[in-house]
Amino acid sequence: MTSLPPLAITQGDPAGIGGEIIARAFARDPQATAGCFVVGDRAHLERAVAATGAALRVVPVDDPGEVAAVLPGAIPLVQVGRRHDPGSLVAWGRVQAEAGRIAADAVGWAARAALHGQVAGLVTAPLHKEALAAAGFDFPGHTELLQAEAASHLRRPVAEVPVRMMLASDELRTVLVSIHVSLREAIEAVNFDNVLQTLRIAHQALARSLGRPPRLAVAGLNPHAGEGGLFGREEIEVIAPAVRAARAEGIDADGPHAPDTVFMRARATPARPGAFDAVVAMYHDQGLIPVKYLGLDKGVNVTLGLPLVRTSPDHGTAFDLAGTGRADPASLLAALRMARRLATP
Amino acid sequence: MTSLPPLAITQGDPAGIGGEIIARAFARDPQATAGCFVVGDRAHLERAVAATGAALRVVPVDDPGEVAAVLPGAIPLVQVGRRHDPGSLVAWGRVQAEAGRIAADAVGWAARAALHGQVAGLVTAPLHKEALAAAGFDFPGHTELLQAEAASHLRRPVAEVPVRMMLASDELRTVLVSIHVSLREAIEAVNFDNVLQTLRIAHQALARSLGRPPRLAVAGLNPHAGEGGLFGREEIEVIAPAVRAARAEGIDADGPHAPDTVFMRARATPARPGAFDAVVAMYHDQGLIPVKYLGLDKGVNVTLGLPLVRTSPDHGTAFDLAGTGRADPASLLAALRMARRLATP
Repeated sequence: MTSLPPLAITQGDPAGIGGEIIARAFARDPQATAGCFVVGDRAHLERAVAATGAALRVVPVDDPGEVAAVLPGAIPLVQVGRRHDPGSLVAWGRVQAEAGRIAADAVGWAARAALHGQVAGLVTAPLHKEALAAAGFDFPGHTELLQAEAASHLRRPVAEVPVRMMLASDELRTVLVSIHVSLREAIEAVNFDNVLQTLRIAHQALARSLGRPPRLAVAGLNPHAGEGGLFGREEIEVIAPAVRAARAEGIDADGPHAPDTVFMRARATPARPGAFDAVVAMYHDQGLIPVKYLGLDKGVNVTLGLPLVRTSPDHGTAFDLAGTGRADPASLLAALRMARRLATP
Repeated sequence: MTSLPPLAITQGDPAGIGGEIIARAFARDPQATAGCFVVGDRAHLERAVAATGAALRVVPVDDPGEVAAVLPGAIPLVQVGRRHDPGSLVAWGRVQAEAGRIAADAVGWAARAALHGQVAGLVTAPLHKEALAAAGFDFPGHTELLQAEAASHLRRPVAEVPVRMMLASDELRTVLVSIHVSLREAIEAVNFDNVLQTLRIAHQALARSLGRPPRLAVAGLNPHAGEGGLFGREEIEVIAPAVRAARAEGIDADGPHAPDTVFMRARATPARPGAFDAVVAMYHDQGLIPVKYLGLDKGVNVTLGLPLVRTSPDHGTAFDLAGTGRADPASLLAALRMARRLATP
């Protein structure tokens, strides 16, 4: 039992490792999973629990309010969408429309529960973009799904609910100007508005979670941050003006810095605090390479800018591992702890 | 005394930290610096030794053959260019034409000594591009200076002496398709010929230093290596064909891999060997961010493709530190050890 508000864990694509990492997380760490419940389909979750060999029961609850009463050794589940019976489950490890539908229904339900204050936040197990598309959901991933739910809740156009992805480990936080676009398009996305918007979102979200204004480093786009214009002018024409504008708003932003050393400088170790609380990265791999370098199990994905707390493990559905019971729950556990921290006022 | 062939250390820009890291390297690690000598100007080196407080004498030698006879506690020096007297030294920490000239003269001399087999290799202390330009040397850095010396020695056009930069730490080696160009230009440089050329150079150099064919991973250019063409087509149109062509030549190349995880996979730790011997990176920061992430003192810069061994510490002239005696010699020592390894048949 716990007195904290419950956290929703969405089951993810039931053909992937979502259910298994959930089962292994509950089995391995009763403390981190206390007050958490799963949103998904009971029969699929029970199959995943069986695949891991964990001695856990799945206990249906009607409502997040009942989660606190569920005893340890059980996984509370809110059933969403059609109830499958054990004879009609999706196959492991393949793209299937039904699997996409189950995954998307869970995310939609959990997002609305968070927006209405029924849960403290959501932690999303991985879904598969192609299964989502096969089920008729026109979203490349979680972020866009959640953005649409939030926009509808706020009665605003999606474009007015800008979000950014943060990847965080114990050592390093990085907030990305763009994510899943080609490197050429990512360069085009490095414009004044996007960089300033990223700084505002990072500032606001981290100020809330740290309880003080964050120190933000801004990476350059080019080698050596352009070396005074010799290797590119985006630093001079775009990034530095956006940093100045952010500072004029009271945001503690610093840069642009040489990309090859700014992450090392921001890195916090037990021996030494980092020089910054987060690095704003100009494109996907600039930020993700250093966070992932020390190991995949450490990274947590956090969506910033939404009026809800959402974290996720930093890996995909791992179809090749699904059903083996061997998938590692470490990143999911890190995501649970991070969500709890972000959700605690 | 040592029976290995001598290694030349070029003094670098005498307004920077070059002389100081050399003095501190000799003071800290007599074993790593045994059989090494400095190429530069005596009075400037003596000033640097004094700045560090090291109890070392500078002992002029006429020729690399005399280095082995110099006793420990001394730094052997081959004087190159005009002899300065202690009253006419360049100022610390500023761009000066005279400083650029001293630095370039030392590099030219050491390159020719290496090309003629008089030294086993060269380790270059940092120089300053602007000082080089002020002295009338039209080269952006060491690499291009050495490339020109090698081309002249081989009587070939510079374009026919292709070189690549490798950055190596104890954990990770990365070989770069391009270096000091804007990210936009770096994307244009990701073409079939350049990627294949990089694989050939990396294969040849690492086969020599490892004594076996290296396992080379090739990073993609785009997030998730383009995710099957969704976020960019360079992987499909350029990188994969170059990898296939390299494999047809017997090179053990593998990829393109997702950039955000390939460095983590290649990383070697005491607990676990890396999955690859080196990663071919598509642009400067892709490769340098992970090598530098764990600390600047670990990285060594190696020029591949030249008919000589050349390494350097992975930092610049640090004008702000010059003259304080506090600059850290760790990266220079790592560069000395690496050069010794590469030069040992």
